[in-house]
Amino acid sequence: MAHLDGILAAYAEANKGYEESGIPIGAVIVDRSGKILGMGHNQRIQKSSPTLHAEIAALEDAGRQRTEVYRTATLYTTLSPCSMCTGAILLYKIPRVVIGENVNFKGDEDLLRARGVEVTVVNNQDCKELMRRFIEERPEEWNEDIGEAA
Amino acid sequence: MAHLDGILAAYAEANKGYEESGIPIGAVIVDRSGKILGMGHNQRIQKSSPTLHAEIAALEDAGRQRTEVYRTATLYTTLSPCSMCTGAILLYKIPRVVIGENVNFKGDEDLLRARGVEVTVVNNQDCKELMRRFIEERPEEWNEDIGEAA
Repeated sequence: MAHLDGILAAYAEANKGYEESGIPIGAVIVDRSGKILGMGHNQRIQKSSPTLHAEIAALEDAGRQRTEVYRTATLYTTLSPCSMCTGAILLYKIPRVVIGENVNFKGDEDLLRARGVEVTVVNNQDCKELMRRFIEERPEEWNEDIGEAA
Repeated sequence: MAHLDGILAAYAEANKGYEESGIPIGAVIVDRSGKILGMGHNQRIQKSSPTLHAEIAALEDAGRQRTEVYRTATLYTTLSPCSMCTGAILLYKIPRVVIGENVNFKGDEDLLRARGVEVTVVNNQDCKELMRRFIEERPEEWNEDIGEAA
């Protein structure tokens, strides 16, 4: 799968989240052949969940997978992954992460790089604009999602 | 709450998991006054979940909490937290983590320490024995849970 296709699929998830009045972050996990294993968007508001970030939701959607599937997968996410999602990527040794943007939030992507994950930031305009709009509209829920005081 | 009480509560969760034929790891999150906010045990097998580790399940059980609640909480877990659970602790800036044992598995606890989290390992015999037994009985499911090849 080309980087743009993966980010477009993640963005479609983020946009679903926005339309549900949720936090508009989306993620897609793809296997070595380009097949989508799982996709998801942040569920803090919809499911009152403090841990179903987009990346975690995509991993949940993929379900239990064999170790070697993760180790040859690519994760696409609209926004730089927070510490928790970074840790999930490290747990399963997902070797490649493609990030829509890291302007509105820069998570723990340097830790990914330090541990040998191939990280690509595509600086996608649509991802940036959707997130910028949400943060402006609902700063309290955004701060809650990243563990920051309002 | 004394360390032993917290670990006993986490162990009770782990034991529930074992009785459900699940992976016997438990966690409890406690607020500054010692009140339990949430508790949980690993749900890989019971819910076919790749992300509901004990610590994540406890955070889910606690539900959405204000930033300052996390920042004054203590997390008790029967086993050294993996990268994902370490990342969740860092995301919410939980300042204290008490670990039952790190003999059967040592997760990313050094990263917790490096980022300023107070980590205490109590080296609890019951936690060690339950986990040792499970790993011996079901090595494949254990390896799956920590992202290791069998």
